[in-house]
Amino acid sequence: MTRHYNFCAGPAALPEAVLARAREEMLDYRGRGLSVMEMSHRSGDYVAIAEQAERDLRDLLAIPDNYRVLFTQGGATQQFAALPYNLLGAGGTANFVQTGIWGSKAIKEARHLFGDAAVAASSEANGHTAVPRPEDIVLSSDAAYLHYTANETIGGLEFDYIPGNDAGELRRPDGREVPLACDMSSSILSGPLDVSRFGVIYAGAQKNIGPAGLVVAIVRDDLLDQGRADMPSLFSYRALAEAGSMINTPATYSWYLAGLVFQWLKDDIGGLAAMSAINDRKAARLYAAIDASEFYSNPIAPRNRSRMNVPFVLADSRLEDAFLAESEEAGLLNLKGHRSVGGMRASLYNAVPEAAVEALVDFMADFEKRRG
Amino acid sequence: MTRHYNFCAGPAALPEAVLARAREEMLDYRGRGLSVMEMSHRSGDYVAIAEQAERDLRDLLAIPDNYRVLFTQGGATQQFAALPYNLLGAGGTANFVQTGIWGSKAIKEARHLFGDAAVAASSEANGHTAVPRPEDIVLSSDAAYLHYTANETIGGLEFDYIPGNDAGELRRPDGREVPLACDMSSSILSGPLDVSRFGVIYAGAQKNIGPAGLVVAIVRDDLLDQGRADMPSLFSYRALAEAGSMINTPATYSWYLAGLVFQWLKDDIGGLAAMSAINDRKAARLYAAIDASEFYSNPIAPRNRSRMNVPFVLADSRLEDAFLAESEEAGLLNLKGHRSVGGMRASLYNAVPEAAVEALVDFMADFEKRRG
Repeated sequence: MTRHYNFCAGPAALPEAVLARAREEMLDYRGRGLSVMEMSHRSGDYVAIAEQAERDLRDLLAIPDNYRVLFTQGGATQQFAALPYNLLGAGGTANFVQTGIWGSKAIKEARHLFGDAAVAASSEANGHTAVPRPEDIVLSSDAAYLHYTANETIGGLEFDYIPGNDAGELRRPDGREVPLACDMSSSILSGPLDVSRFGVIYAGAQKNIGPAGLVVAIVRDDLLDQGRADMPSLFSYRALAEAGSMINTPATYSWYLAGLVFQWLKDDIGGLAAMSAINDRKAARLYAAIDASEFYSNPIAPRNRSRMNVPFVLADSRLEDAFLAESEEAGLLNLKGHRSVGGMRASLYNAVPEAAVEALVDFMADFEKRRG
Repeated sequence: MTRHYNFCAGPAALPEAVLARAREEMLDYRGRGLSVMEMSHRSGDYVAIAEQAERDLRDLLAIPDNYRVLFTQGGATQQFAALPYNLLGAGGTANFVQTGIWGSKAIKEARHLFGDAAVAASSEANGHTAVPRPEDIVLSSDAAYLHYTANETIGGLEFDYIPGNDAGELRRPDGREVPLACDMSSSILSGPLDVSRFGVIYAGAQKNIGPAGLVVAIVRDDLLDQGRADMPSLFSYRALAEAGSMINTPATYSWYLAGLVFQWLKDDIGGLAAMSAINDRKAARLYAAIDASEFYSNPIAPRNRSRMNVPFVLADSRLEDAFLAESEEAGLLNLKGHRSVGGMRASLYNAVPEAAVEALVDFMADFEKRRG
């Protein structure tokens, strides 16, 4: 068995220790005589797994007691619908900061379902290379909530701040406070986070949490009862919270694997501050290599460069195919950029080790020397 | 490692050969240097896995070419919402045959979302112990489709026929043909099936397909464009069909595991006729043991007894706790009935071997001898 370095944007690399543990427990979970996959979600053993995962996530992110943690399904894309259903019950308009493809998809779904959505700020004018500044975010007079995408996975653009005024609040023109909702799919758990600034955080699992299919939502208590009456029952944050995320059978095995990732972050890495320091080093190493070369380039304003997704292009785009073929040959997998933008992209999620970045930087230097 | 016999109603037992294969490939799929969980859903390797799974399912069920196979998420419960969204675009009313708890939940969700739902037939009067006869199903004059639950997992009640007239058609009073929709979560793949009788079949994976979280829907081509304009994008059968079930990242690992189950059914079992014969023997053995005793009983009309879920009670209900404790001690897991009905339930899905039923029947005889 050889494990290669995997720079996939998602579904992404998982910690080898997590996969090894899952393999060990695959046919017989701790002497119980069955796989976790085969357990009733109502059984004592499974409920213990599920609750431990939630506790560990709460520990890692220091989630305050007035937030509920939900484990649901359908990817972030389903939350593009579920979120407005849950927060528009009292009327008003969903507001968005638009910084790339994922934020635009969220806007599109809100408009599709509810006709209207306000763009409170957009980086479209700069080609999504720099995030709007806090003072440029202008909420509509009837804003029900503000949604943003903490890290645009495709563009490689990451917020360097949490929207809000100096007091950490978001207020619309009439002074009413507006809850902040965030798609954190590709940056959650990459470092410590002040959850108390948010109304709702959600994240598809397939980057820093676990396997695709699972979605984690962190919802402030007072927002559980803002839902529209006409929403599909499974979308309801209130119903999910009351049922411990078990309105129906949850994605049990994915939840278990997420729990193993949380344990790895706590026990093997030492928590999110330690994880953040590693992520800083990985990203700094790769961006430095790009910046030191005229052969490679990345278009994002330095303060908004994503730590998790590093897109780059070659000065001579005709060499891209060779770059991708040779990097794969060298055991550096999935460096191809998103099909909508082309070029290259190296995703440096938590499970991508520093050695992977070293190997990539070495390969890039060697490729440039040979082909540049 | 000891594998016990697992009679769980869902998430249910998986074939040991499938789990062993998943274990073997967990850290390195066929020399690719990564886990299936870590693959891009757009990569050649993953697309091959996904397409092979669909081909194998098509082979097993002899799915005609004018049907699309969708791999989606959210359990059957999400389909309780998605199905009416997809089939009520031209107006009309969803019709239901109500035979137990799951069918009633489907009715409740349709009423919740669209105000109205017609009960075309119900077994409520007989306590859901016998399925309505074909001639007792009366469609409403504006029926858009008829939905039924092929096998009620909790009640242990299974249809012994596919609704329709002698020509295999369903017609409403004005003569218009009405498509048939079926929740087949707990009986799909238990035997051969005439898919051409259906408009839509859907099934949560966690019984006979794979791990919880995945849902398979089989949709006749002409029904892809009957959807309501106001449905959440991810619910759309048309959009799922066009995107090859990849509107967004699907539950990639669950889909892979489903593919391993399909291969097991084809290669190890020999197809669904062979599987059906095994399932017949398992169910016959257990029902015979129940019927031969005055200590155990099952209330369902013989022709509607489920092959997959066998609920039973003890003549003296005070012995239930002892039965459950001792059976678990004997390595016979998850025999407790659903929390809403109590008693016992043995689920005999495809992955439960005949030896498990023998062991259960032996245990039951021994328990009766000692405690009866």
